[in-house]
Amino acid sequence: MTNHHFYMDLALKNAEAMKGQTDPNPLVGAVIVNDNRVVGIGAHLKAGEPHAEIHALRMAGDQARGGTIYVTLEPCSHHGRTGPCAEAIVDAGLKTVVIATLDPNPLVSGQGVSILKDAGIEVITGVRAEESKKMNEVFNKFIVEKKPFVTLKSGISLDGKIATYSSSSKWITSAEARQDVHQLRNENMAILVGINTIVKDNPELTTRIPNGRNPIRVILDSTLQIPLDAKVIKDMQAETWIFTAEHYDEEKRKILEELGIKVWPTTGSPHVNPVDVVQTLGEKLVSSLLIEGGGTINAAFLENKLVDKAVIYIAPKLVGGREAPTFLEGAGIDKMGDAIELSDASIISVGKDFKFVGYPVYIDQQSEK
Amino acid sequence: MTNHHFYMDLALKNAEAMKGQTDPNPLVGAVIVNDNRVVGIGAHLKAGEPHAEIHALRMAGDQARGGTIYVTLEPCSHHGRTGPCAEAIVDAGLKTVVIATLDPNPLVSGQGVSILKDAGIEVITGVRAEESKKMNEVFNKFIVEKKPFVTLKSGISLDGKIATYSSSSKWITSAEARQDVHQLRNENMAILVGINTIVKDNPELTTRIPNGRNPIRVILDSTLQIPLDAKVIKDMQAETWIFTAEHYDEEKRKILEELGIKVWPTTGSPHVNPVDVVQTLGEKLVSSLLIEGGGTINAAFLENKLVDKAVIYIAPKLVGGREAPTFLEGAGIDKMGDAIELSDASIISVGKDFKFVGYPVYIDQQSEK
Repeated sequence: MTNHHFYMDLALKNAEAMKGQTDPNPLVGAVIVNDNRVVGIGAHLKAGEPHAEIHALRMAGDQARGGTIYVTLEPCSHHGRTGPCAEAIVDAGLKTVVIATLDPNPLVSGQGVSILKDAGIEVITGVRAEESKKMNEVFNKFIVEKKPFVTLKSGISLDGKIATYSSSSKWITSAEARQDVHQLRNENMAILVGINTIVKDNPELTTRIPNGRNPIRVILDSTLQIPLDAKVIKDMQAETWIFTAEHYDEEKRKILEELGIKVWPTTGSPHVNPVDVVQTLGEKLVSSLLIEGGGTINAAFLENKLVDKAVIYIAPKLVGGREAPTFLEGAGIDKMGDAIELSDASIISVGKDFKFVGYPVYIDQQSEK
Repeated sequence: MTNHHFYMDLALKNAEAMKGQTDPNPLVGAVIVNDNRVVGIGAHLKAGEPHAEIHALRMAGDQARGGTIYVTLEPCSHHGRTGPCAEAIVDAGLKTVVIATLDPNPLVSGQGVSILKDAGIEVITGVRAEESKKMNEVFNKFIVEKKPFVTLKSGISLDGKIATYSSSSKWITSAEARQDVHQLRNENMAILVGINTIVKDNPELTTRIPNGRNPIRVILDSTLQIPLDAKVIKDMQAETWIFTAEHYDEEKRKILEELGIKVWPTTGSPHVNPVDVVQTLGEKLVSSLLIEGGGTINAAFLENKLVDKAVIYIAPKLVGGREAPTFLEGAGIDKMGDAIELSDASIISVGKDFKFVGYPVYIDQQSEK
């Protein structure tokens, strides 16, 4: 590990520590080193407050001059609350700037680097780029596409089942895995389920961890059949947004809206159009969506290439059953060679279960590579 | 780690190095230590040759006197080719004997320890017991039950599928995972598939690794519909045994037997009875069986509590499809609480895939615990 990696790792660690408190801004960390000694550390703490570089520069004071700053994201070039960070770095007399990743926004990407280079500063980019990108995967997508980063979550048996043939499903995974799901809910602005889940389980869909934030509860309900005494309608613990198909019950919509529930029709018929759901959520500034649907909803989002990340908890148990549902149904692919690969796949232990994380690679993305 | 564990690990390592060359005997290793110095090491190399303890005692010579011997399996008490090892240890003047596990055969288990204790030798048991048991899991079952140790192997997508809805299945897993399967075949005395696999893929079912041993090819074929030009009938690379249901074609049986194929009827109707299959293989001294069946065969063996170990290669890809087959079909369980747990579950990376290993715990076993 070179010194560059060592200091960038420290910057990444400080950035990541602020997870959940910088929205809608990205996580950013900075470290200033002079004469082999750290003279300043910083992180972006909260939207509206100074950027990471500014905190680090203030800490370093005069000792920044002639030093190297490590920053996990390209210093900004725009005049915000604390002025362009790139100019502040120039003014402080830094000699070298080491950057993990350029700004993901194509409108400004590279502009910070230009300011620095124009001032004669040495700029090194791409140090720990993958780690920085992954840390801000939600922000990076939303800032470019104005659509939420979509995570598909499921808890399955080793044989892929989410329930038995008779729909018994409690519990597949361990308490530790279910606790981990609450962390996922805490990190996502919205959670999506199908109407069947509401009718069958009447869940609250809230985050049960200390200081947890409840996501917006998004329900796909083609015909507005949701019971008015469902917890997500009555409990007021979080907003509930219902997406319908093209044809729905206008009367029921009025009743729901009077109860404070948002109802969004989509162009889908007879089912909700998932493309419209993601589009609408993006327009309403929902930057992250967690799908906790069944096999049909999961397949609908995947077939429309809307899933960015899959988080699958695998319980070491066997359910069996030709008719038992798996977490991914729909029509499915025809040729095995067309299976959707999951890149950057990893598995870790969570309690007695295993947590799989991977990123779907869709065909048009593959051909670009 | 105590010294006991350190030396027992060395004994285990030497034992395990002989994997595949000691059949039908178990893997056993031994280490003799005197005055904190290793004075002898040994392993059982081949059936008919000396036991591990004898090799270690010969190496140690006079230096065994007053020392400690570590042996992964209880020293034998019977008069075989090299006499009872327990008596040889007594004769050599060892002071302490450290044993990982007692002999699994209930007829002789504990008798070696008795001989040692009667001679005034200190005996410590249970050091690295789990590791020793797992190393000889096949032997331990066969010596007691006279039935093969059954490993169920499958290669699946993350969503549990073994093929698409249109039966496309090549390839789910990576070349590295498929290579690992050949190692499994090398370690098993027999490999079992259903007639559908023969008709669809016409496989050779051989071990494609250098110096690999080909397992007996066991085919479940209820009505003896196997084509006479199937590779497993014609290629003579290994024995082929066919198990049928109660009613089958007597003429076809004669033709097959004239071709050197063994045909075993079972009591099953209309399908082959898997209990009879395992029983017959045991009677024919087949100590290990690898099942590479589809979801129906897998379920039949699992429902009859015949599967001892599951080895599942999980490819990080998604297939989907309500009609796509999973590796475990049949009727399946009714209540999620009745799912078959897999104990000692582990997952490691194999190429870009993941290899899951676990041991089914059947209800009657659970209630014994």
